Amino acid sequence: MRQSKLFTKTRKEAPSDEVSKNAQLLIRAGFINKEMAGVYSMLPLGLKTHEKIKQIIREEMNAIGGQEILMSSLQPKEIWENTGRWDDELVDVWFKAELKAGGEVGFGWSHEEPIGEMMKNHIRSFKDLPVYVYQFQNKLRNELRAKSGIMRGREFGMKDSYSFCDGEEQHNKIYEDTIKAYERIFERFGIADRTFMTFAPGGAFTEFSHEFQTICDAGEDYIYLNKEKNIAINEEVMSEETLQKLGVKKEELKRVKTAEVGNIFNFGLQKAKDIGLFYKNEAGEKTPVWMGSYGIGTTRMMGVLAEVMSDNKGLVWPEEVSPFKIHLILLDGKDTTDARDEAERLYEDLLSRGADVLYDDREVSAGQKFADADLIGISNRFVISDKTLSAGQIEYYSRQKGTTKMITEQELIERYV
Amino acid sequence: MRQSKLFTKTRKEAPSDEVSKNAQLLIRAGFINKEMAGVYSMLPLGLKTHEKIKQIIREEMNAIGGQEILMSSLQPKEIWENTGRWDDELVDVWFKAELKAGGEVGFGWSHEEPIGEMMKNHIRSFKDLPVYVYQFQNKLRNELRAKSGIMRGREFGMKDSYSFCDGEEQHNKIYEDTIKAYERIFERFGIADRTFMTFAPGGAFTEFSHEFQTICDAGEDYIYLNKEKNIAINEEVMSEETLQKLGVKKEELKRVKTAEVGNIFNFGLQKAKDIGLFYKNEAGEKTPVWMGSYGIGTTRMMGVLAEVMSDNKGLVWPEEVSPFKIHLILLDGKDTTDARDEAERLYEDLLSRGADVLYDDREVSAGQKFADADLIGISNRFVISDKTLSAGQIEYYSRQKGTTKMITEQELIERYV
Repeated sequence: MRQSKLFTKTRKEAPSDEVSKNAQLLIRAGFINKEMAGVYSMLPLGLKTHEKIKQIIREEMNAIGGQEILMSSLQPKEIWENTGRWDDELVDVWFKAELKAGGEVGFGWSHEEPIGEMMKNHIRSFKDLPVYVYQFQNKLRNELRAKSGIMRGREFGMKDSYSFCDGEEQHNKIYEDTIKAYERIFERFGIADRTFMTFAPGGAFTEFSHEFQTICDAGEDYIYLNKEKNIAINEEVMSEETLQKLGVKKEELKRVKTAEVGNIFNFGLQKAKDIGLFYKNEAGEKTPVWMGSYGIGTTRMMGVLAEVMSDNKGLVWPEEVSPFKIHLILLDGKDTTDARDEAERLYEDLLSRGADVLYDDREVSAGQKFADADLIGISNRFVISDKTLSAGQIEYYSRQKGTTKMITEQELIERYV
Repeated sequence: MRQSKLFTKTRKEAPSDEVSKNAQLLIRAGFINKEMAGVYSMLPLGLKTHEKIKQIIREEMNAIGGQEILMSSLQPKEIWENTGRWDDELVDVWFKAELKAGGEVGFGWSHEEPIGEMMKNHIRSFKDLPVYVYQFQNKLRNELRAKSGIMRGREFGMKDSYSFCDGEEQHNKIYEDTIKAYERIFERFGIADRTFMTFAPGGAFTEFSHEFQTICDAGEDYIYLNKEKNIAINEEVMSEETLQKLGVKKEELKRVKTAEVGNIFNFGLQKAKDIGLFYKNEAGEKTPVWMGSYGIGTTRMMGVLAEVMSDNKGLVWPEEVSPFKIHLILLDGKDTTDARDEAERLYEDLLSRGADVLYDDREVSAGQKFADADLIGISNRFVISDKTLSAGQIEYYSRQKGTTKMITEQELIERYV
């Protein structure tokens, strides 16, 4: 798209009440708008980035047999009362409202109960299993504090998935598949080298759950980490007993600050018993379904990327989640010049090839164009100017590597379209 | 995808408390799940159909310069107080909740005020205009009654767009462009011949707004229609004065029941004055922005299609919004046969070509497969059986036309992939 048409403006300063680095950068670059503390809207650049994050997750979830659904935000009180979790004493993040038609309604902070309830219509026999569903949901949580930008909002995007299995063996297969899918996802997000599967608090059924923790100064967690042995333990379950079980010594581990970007959880049979989700197994016996749940915070992911992939000039997106793959910059700000003619021709040609391109056709100074480009952080930048025209090539700049080189139009098309 | 893996089951009966035809059909076919009155979740087939509806609208909105954003569901009380619309007496569909951090928060039933407020950060000068944004939003409305299935829910999908212009002339261009875009959208939904732009109640600024009304027995509106003259008047504004203005006589009009599927609204300068959204015009004067708003209910659209495109066997999707473009049906329910081998080969070949195909590979009777296929209503059905094998062709059935013919594999690929 033409940057002259993009309605968002970059800003020198973020709102004074915004204390988190991720939201400051994303607001200044025109990715998000702050509606209130912990609540942000997605502007065109932010929406595109968030959709790319979702699409990577979608592809990897589909690859392991996930089926996409979308649950409602409004949830009936009754199904949460059945499992005892309607109570504000037990769940302290509920938003609730009165229905005009009478009674109360809850707003989805989690979807375990509704999805389990829904599955009663679809799971009857072992022949129906396994079932693995996921959704990209807009979660609403009545958080007391919200100072982490889009890393912990009162409203946030989340991929949550749920597995329904005929026994432990079938469950373990999906659990292991999900670990591998998550590893591929974090690889594609460009954070594999700083993200670690971590032993974390379990629940009624399992001693440990597994979290994926990314080293990040703005995180809210601490983990004990040994990179070489690939062992990570959430501080919350750090104990002599845990160390013994994992065969590691405390001296080998380093305490680092992290942000939780994913989690996987084995419910065993307990959750289905609570919900009342039973099926007939191969022996014809009525049996609770073996359940698991698996989350990745998608807006949090965007916040973490803004935190760990940025410099003093702005955002530095990895190519797969960059709002555009190509940032084409015309360096002659004037109305009609040879450089503009050439940039216009190339832009139209790229569009006709289906390229994902933001074209800075604005009549502003080179300094402002580069400052905005650095702030927005699109991974691949191509400059057309009188200088590049006379060289018969295009100047390529990698926002991640900070390197510049001259390339031909053919190279641009082959590598970046 | 393989139908044997699709977790949803078709049902002979809808829930007894479901009175609307659209929800009955969509629940029975496994498109949606009823969470509570007026609240439905999207199952895989429903989500795919809804996404196709959204994608058609997205393409047409982008084509007229729309920029996609996504506002939050949570909304601060203050911006609605500024325009006097926080009051439950004035707006009777608010969901509101207490914030744990103190104060109240609203849940988005409309986004006019928040989008206008947000634009204060991006619109300063006439050079910034026009701006045209749209979103696909999950609206929440505290409706007293909810008996129309997904045609009027307490939670529903909506495309809402907003234009911000430098004066009336610029506004009129976008208004006219939107009318044409809407006409293309309803054409692609297959309902152009029963959808009419209708004179409807205006507001503080204009005498009339425009609605798009689709003839539908389950609708909640009545319009006075003359198909030949292409004149339609919402009953709410039907009067001698209106007839005179439009140069039409009451005898020429027929009263028909309709469902509102779209609306377009000219706010003039009033809305920007209320919100406090001003810019500097070319003469350097501080001026309120000329605003318009434009809606299409996306889940309602799905409901209307279910109402008007269905028969006693089930749903009948037009090709562009059919959950899959191809329904490939293997008629030999057995484990290994020549027909199965052939169907498997064709399915894998279609997948490798990127086709959008549901493959009924289940080991159930032909009768059940056809009953399910009729209920789900995918537009193009292809049958492979011993009979078609020996003929060296594939049987094609059009769900919309009800016609059958034999075609070659090459024809299938050329026309439907």
